[in-house]
Amino acid sequence: MRATTLHGPYDIRVEEVPDARVQAPHDAVVQVLRACVCGSDLWAYRGESARQPGQRIGHEFLGTVVETGSEVGTVRPGDLVVAPFTWADGVCGFCAEGLPTSCANGGFWGSVGSDGGQGEAVRVPYADGTLVRLPGEAASDDRLLTALLALSDVMGTGHHAAVSAGVRPGATVAVVGDGAVGLCAVLAARRLGAERVVMLGRHTARTRVARSFGATDVVAERGEAAVAAVRELTGGHGAHAVVEAVGTEQSMKTAVGIARPGGAVGWVGVPHGSGAGLDMGLLFKHNIALRGGIAPVRTYLPQLLPDVLSGALDPSPVFDLSVGLAEVADGYRAMDERTALKALVTF
Amino acid sequence: MRATTLHGPYDIRVEEVPDARVQAPHDAVVQVLRACVCGSDLWAYRGESARQPGQRIGHEFLGTVVETGSEVGTVRPGDLVVAPFTWADGVCGFCAEGLPTSCANGGFWGSVGSDGGQGEAVRVPYADGTLVRLPGEAASDDRLLTALLALSDVMGTGHHAAVSAGVRPGATVAVVGDGAVGLCAVLAARRLGAERVVMLGRHTARTRVARSFGATDVVAERGEAAVAAVRELTGGHGAHAVVEAVGTEQSMKTAVGIARPGGAVGWVGVPHGSGAGLDMGLLFKHNIALRGGIAPVRTYLPQLLPDVLSGALDPSPVFDLSVGLAEVADGYRAMDERTALKALVTF
Repeated sequence: MRATTLHGPYDIRVEEVPDARVQAPHDAVVQVLRACVCGSDLWAYRGESARQPGQRIGHEFLGTVVETGSEVGTVRPGDLVVAPFTWADGVCGFCAEGLPTSCANGGFWGSVGSDGGQGEAVRVPYADGTLVRLPGEAASDDRLLTALLALSDVMGTGHHAAVSAGVRPGATVAVVGDGAVGLCAVLAARRLGAERVVMLGRHTARTRVARSFGATDVVAERGEAAVAAVRELTGGHGAHAVVEAVGTEQSMKTAVGIARPGGAVGWVGVPHGSGAGLDMGLLFKHNIALRGGIAPVRTYLPQLLPDVLSGALDPSPVFDLSVGLAEVADGYRAMDERTALKALVTF
Repeated sequence: MRATTLHGPYDIRVEEVPDARVQAPHDAVVQVLRACVCGSDLWAYRGESARQPGQRIGHEFLGTVVETGSEVGTVRPGDLVVAPFTWADGVCGFCAEGLPTSCANGGFWGSVGSDGGQGEAVRVPYADGTLVRLPGEAASDDRLLTALLALSDVMGTGHHAAVSAGVRPGATVAVVGDGAVGLCAVLAARRLGAERVVMLGRHTARTRVARSFGATDVVAERGEAAVAAVRELTGGHGAHAVVEAVGTEQSMKTAVGIARPGGAVGWVGVPHGSGAGLDMGLLFKHNIALRGGIAPVRTYLPQLLPDVLSGALDPSPVFDLSVGLAEVADGYRAMDERTALKALVTF
């Protein structure tokens, strides 16, 4: 089979790799119908996150089950399924608590020795704990299939940010980060009842999506000026709930600066840098909570799925470029150069 | 009247100062019966927090109302009252949300231009929003009066830490910091239903109090060894709820290191240092929340008061030294040298 591999900075390839096959009784093999490129893949692409030469990449996919191990009970060949960006056994203490990302038997697609999502097929360990079945009819609905793919990461991660930030009906929310996760956080915040959603961003194509997702205000300023602008929009106090979907020290600084006393920053941007950007004095003085981390997307999937199926929740517009597997490098390049927001990979 | 003043590092004095008197219609004047020295006063005492020469000090007191302004409605002369460590108007948006520490009209005892708690009397702005009435009979019960004094700061702050750390019935809790606040957090955690409370500390006199307050385990190790010891006590995973009651980069690092994935650190130690001690990668990977800050003690006072009055909650053992106002410098010295845990000042 063919799959995407990374050989060094900016050296993304599509190569023949061993076919995915069931290796353990709890495995399933999924033939991929849709995959995509994540903003976090770019860290590896740019050489900023270490990878072994030839390592697989991609952690978002949906497709059709083609083989199952003897212990797999919830899916069978022919089923349309979506996978969260980590696998988990579904039965351990952390899985039971809704935190499959801390499962002792869990792991990441594309880690050494595992298949990546950007390939023709994926061996899925712990299929029962990992995969979520989708209605078969969805396979013939192009828009819906793309929307469902977002549940593998960005929509669930945006939802985690909103939940972690404590979004409640009537809340004022601010979103730092106009990538796919930040945009999905706008959708999630509105779904959770936010009255006002301020998107911080200056890329017109992205802020246009943000507005279509329900953002009520857009702040184009950066740094101190952005903090001042959000404060002015919120009666001087800041937002009840702030989503941080970037992960840099500067974005965290901005996020804390625009949070209302007693509010929370829901952070889901993979941290790059130390806590040095955090103004501990400000967090302390204003009782601002910092909550979030790697999103337990598998836990949210059954909660979000009905709304995506009904069309009430449609994250599909975050995909603004579609490539075939052979052109996946074009997808990386476009995202790296910010000419594309998020690249879909079709098979 | 006489009050405690700070003139420079280690230069604490008791001097004649202008009598406290009603200056605004919402003021009351409280004649102090009990005050005490706080661990945070030591930062000023040591010159590590800036103060003006001659500035008042002390933010914990209870006493008898002796004068009220024309707009004060909830207390009257003769009432026994306790004050939280900040005043607040009680009617603004933040006060209504339970966050009087963010009240726009609020302030700290001992800030420039205000009376400190370690003096014969205190002018209390916004008496209705600030003071809490106590049963007059308590004045003749020495132990109870001391326990009630703890509601002005350390008991409420320990409770805030426990609440912020998400202590729930059955939870395993770890407490970093064996000062009065850490010890009160042990009481608070047990009151909230914690099944197991691990106190990190090596001072026998303090860990003895911790055990009497309900700590089930004591870890004497520090740093990495402390993290390993707590992990061993908790099945390798860490504590659901961690109280951080010190405020240094090292203590924060320990607190994050002993938190269970999906858990929270409730931090109430006034931050000294930057966020550089925070391992953002660990917080992110394990979805550990950081919640807390300056405790909204006034909000908790009515919740905790009945249990202190009934004797179910008794923080009085945190006071292990009693001095008169004239000897307040002895109290500071003893706490600075760690020969006393917390000094009571009687009048």
